[in-house]
Amino acid sequence: MKHQHYSDVAREGVEGYSGVTVRWLISKNDGAPTFAMRLFEVEPGGASPYHQHEWEHEVFMLEGRAEVVQDSGAAEVSAGDAVLVLPGEGHQFRNTGDGPARFLCMIPLPD
Amino acid sequence: MKHQHYSDVAREGVEGYSGVTVRWLISKNDGAPTFAMRLFEVEPGGASPYHQHEWEHEVFMLEGRAEVVQDSGAAEVSAGDAVLVLPGEGHQFRNTGDGPARFLCMIPLPD
Repeated sequence: MKHQHYSDVAREGVEGYSGVTVRWLISKNDGAPTFAMRLFEVEPGGASPYHQHEWEHEVFMLEGRAEVVQDSGAAEVSAGDAVLVLPGEGHQFRNTGDGPARFLCMIPLPD
Repeated sequence: MKHQHYSDVAREGVEGYSGVTVRWLISKNDGAPTFAMRLFEVEPGGASPYHQHEWEHEVFMLEGRAEVVQDSGAAEVSAGDAVLVLPGEGHQFRNTGDGPARFLCMIPLPD
């Protein structure tokens, strides 16, 4: 068993992402067999680029307010919201609040 | 894309668990292809039975304090901690605080 406070995990920048850092809380390196847990912190005004990929995101908002932008429009999300982005769905996360937005984002690991 | 506040998801009792409820925030029914997201709420003194299984738990403590009991001893965890219980590891979660313990627990979905 591994257990660790998120703040004890190194924070890394994410290339191509403005005002966004990530901490890999649980990954393949820990022996996780199926999926990884990351914690993202996004500064006010920060965002991921609009993108899509073959795998899903399962997100839980821990703090702050954000907008999830899709082709079909934008959805407001805030602390306590769970978000499922399905494989192939285009998406962008934008911090629309005055403080940091923090969320967990789980993804499947490659086979 | 699905998004929903956790409090809008029905809370269910868990058979054999004392003072424990679960909300399935993201599951197979939502089209999740790989893993599910559940939110557990444990009353003070509440606990899961000591058990083990063939799949992993990835846990993120949202609120409160708990003890994860294993053969090798007990680990204290609290809000902000990420916990990986590997397949086959025996484990029990016990709320050791004065208020509710809330945590996310992600598990892989059957093939």
